[in-house]
Amino acid sequence: MPAPTDPRTGLPVVAMVGGGQLARMTHQAAVALGQSLRVLATDPAESAALVAADVRIGDHRDLDALRALAEGATVVTFDHEHVPTEHLRALAAEGVRVAPGAEALVHAQDKLVLRRALAAAGEPQPAWAEVRSTGELAAFAAAHGGWPVVVKTPRGGYDGRGVFVLDEAGQAAELFTASPALLAEERVPLVRELAVLVARSPFGQVAVWPVVETVQRDGINTEVLAPAPGLDDEAAGAAQELAVRIAARVGVVGVMAVELFEVPGGVLVNELAMRPHNSGHWTIEGARTSQFEQHLRAVLDYPLGSTALAAPAVVTANVLGGRASAPDWAGPGIDERVHHLMAHWPDVKLHWYGKGQRPGRKLGHVTALGADLAEVRARAVAAARYLADGEVDPAFAFPPPEEH
Amino acid sequence: MPAPTDPRTGLPVVAMVGGGQLARMTHQAAVALGQSLRVLATDPAESAALVAADVRIGDHRDLDALRALAEGATVVTFDHEHVPTEHLRALAAEGVRVAPGAEALVHAQDKLVLRRALAAAGEPQPAWAEVRSTGELAAFAAAHGGWPVVVKTPRGGYDGRGVFVLDEAGQAAELFTASPALLAEERVPLVRELAVLVARSPFGQVAVWPVVETVQRDGINTEVLAPAPGLDDEAAGAAQELAVRIAARVGVVGVMAVELFEVPGGVLVNELAMRPHNSGHWTIEGARTSQFEQHLRAVLDYPLGSTALAAPAVVTANVLGGRASAPDWAGPGIDERVHHLMAHWPDVKLHWYGKGQRPGRKLGHVTALGADLAEVRARAVAAARYLADGEVDPAFAFPPPEEH
Repeated sequence: MPAPTDPRTGLPVVAMVGGGQLARMTHQAAVALGQSLRVLATDPAESAALVAADVRIGDHRDLDALRALAEGATVVTFDHEHVPTEHLRALAAEGVRVAPGAEALVHAQDKLVLRRALAAAGEPQPAWAEVRSTGELAAFAAAHGGWPVVVKTPRGGYDGRGVFVLDEAGQAAELFTASPALLAEERVPLVRELAVLVARSPFGQVAVWPVVETVQRDGINTEVLAPAPGLDDEAAGAAQELAVRIAARVGVVGVMAVELFEVPGGVLVNELAMRPHNSGHWTIEGARTSQFEQHLRAVLDYPLGSTALAAPAVVTANVLGGRASAPDWAGPGIDERVHHLMAHWPDVKLHWYGKGQRPGRKLGHVTALGADLAEVRARAVAAARYLADGEVDPAFAFPPPEEH
Repeated sequence: MPAPTDPRTGLPVVAMVGGGQLARMTHQAAVALGQSLRVLATDPAESAALVAADVRIGDHRDLDALRALAEGATVVTFDHEHVPTEHLRALAAEGVRVAPGAEALVHAQDKLVLRRALAAAGEPQPAWAEVRSTGELAAFAAAHGGWPVVVKTPRGGYDGRGVFVLDEAGQAAELFTASPALLAEERVPLVRELAVLVARSPFGQVAVWPVVETVQRDGINTEVLAPAPGLDDEAAGAAQELAVRIAARVGVVGVMAVELFEVPGGVLVNELAMRPHNSGHWTIEGARTSQFEQHLRAVLDYPLGSTALAAPAVVTANVLGGRASAPDWAGPGIDERVHHLMAHWPDVKLHWYGKGQRPGRKLGHVTALGADLAEVRARAVAAARYLADGEVDPAFAFPPPEEH
């Protein structure tokens, strides 16, 4: 049976579960390819639902809503990893093309599954164990250099949620009531965090972007520096090869982010995301093919696009809801802040997600490009802080003239 | 009265009259700015109507449809120049912000109005006259070097329509029955055609992109080369200054394309377009700010973005409906052609408009970027021809290895 296409255009229809900013930016990429992304949103005010032409309202945990989304679509894909595995299997059994498939996606949904797969493949990762009691956790700590130990709930965590740094086993008691099995990991001697974005098609073609450095604050990514500064070619190549091996091993279809810990002497795999990812927003302007276009190409089994850099240094800074999102904020509103942003930084690129403003929420991002990483980074960070806090930090406002 | 914004986001709502590919690509740019373009389309299958979230169906000659479009919008702008001037004046009188305004737009709608304005400003243009009879046309020819003479209908022409190269006055007889006044122009010693894209905000800020060369076939633009090869800095600067002067003189708000004839010793103004323009599609990937984002910034009186080049050489090639659009076409369909395009040219960027395929129709464009213009041009042209004709021309398929 040939895959359905849009009868109006003769081109494919990609359906995405989830109406967040990843779906929003995927729709932008779809438009260039002659397509229109179909979106399953839980609310008409969600980020992607505000801008897409084909929006279905429904719950991603409702199999019938997923079936309706898939009707007439070429392939179903995801803006988040929260769709129940049994629903994905049911859709696939009914002939729906689902990308990534359930057996791949589980590696991004369940941290214990990922740890076992990486162990079986002999890939580098922190020392870890599945623990089912405070006693097992204490034994893990004793065997791996003592406390503190990192404890993670296997499912449901993101943006630092579900990750705990514990100083003794008793602190895990409450966690065990919610999750009978936890993932215990050694605390690694972290140099910094890196990420490798890779795309893989059903045909098996793989494309990988340059390795980036990701900077977190309170477990949330705030900056992405592309390419990762100071990473030598050999180390960068090894990290890319690691990501390509994992992509093939888990059989992902679509874009996958491999989050890495850089430690003395190498890298360790932290976790995977199987969708366009915050660490890849820089590719919109900074690479010849954006992660959003590449995700569409991959899930449609189109040939993949060039991942070459479009500038020597690219920095994306996330705009997290800050002072300007507080309920009592009396400073410039978002429209005025956008005015000032544009006046101040005429070559910083804005991506605003149209979501309600709340402190700590990811509201948008900005990307700056140029020749000098320090200068580019200063511009991006200053612009993001201004959008979040409504105030220009003089230390970041203008780079010194000789760097401009 | 403050300008309306979208209550869901606090950001402006731009309403665009016309649902073609210019509106489609403007919507993509709006998404990044936290907005969603409101579109007035005449048919739900129009290019922009397929991808925008807020589509109104109506006729651009219907004042009530325009009023409904403007309701709650921050500003009304255009994807074409066919809205009757009296409707624009009526909207403005009712307090609607219209950009560009009627008094500016008429310079792009009526070629005689433009000629008079340029003459009053002393700007360079071909010798011309308003002629109302074959006798007046013959007199113009006699005074300006004889036949052939270029004759244009003042209104309604585009893509070469409404432009005639006549060998004697009698050939104009039928034209006079449709239009009592015609524009007669000398046939200039054309070296090539150039275009300058400029944006101007109500505040009066102006931004201008590098001058480009436009290549036409049968009066339709087929290639845009950015920056215009072989144009020295002085000539390029003079052309940019000319465009900036005209923008201020006519009071345009938004993006304006100034089409130029290069002749020995300088340039002459051919005509204006007051909207994003085919000669500016290269800016999506090739400039720091695309013409579509800049148009939104300008009509909203946001500060304008950087127009810096993103690569040394950028070429856009239009995909005009070719053999593959013929009713009896039995070769690869569009989805398959897109596959091959991507396999063949992994770094060529596709923009497909989702329109019905007819011979001669503008169906999409491709953009290639790089260091060497000849190589970049060969890639873009080959890709566009493949999409149009479904066949790879061996002469264009692969650039020689040493240029790749």
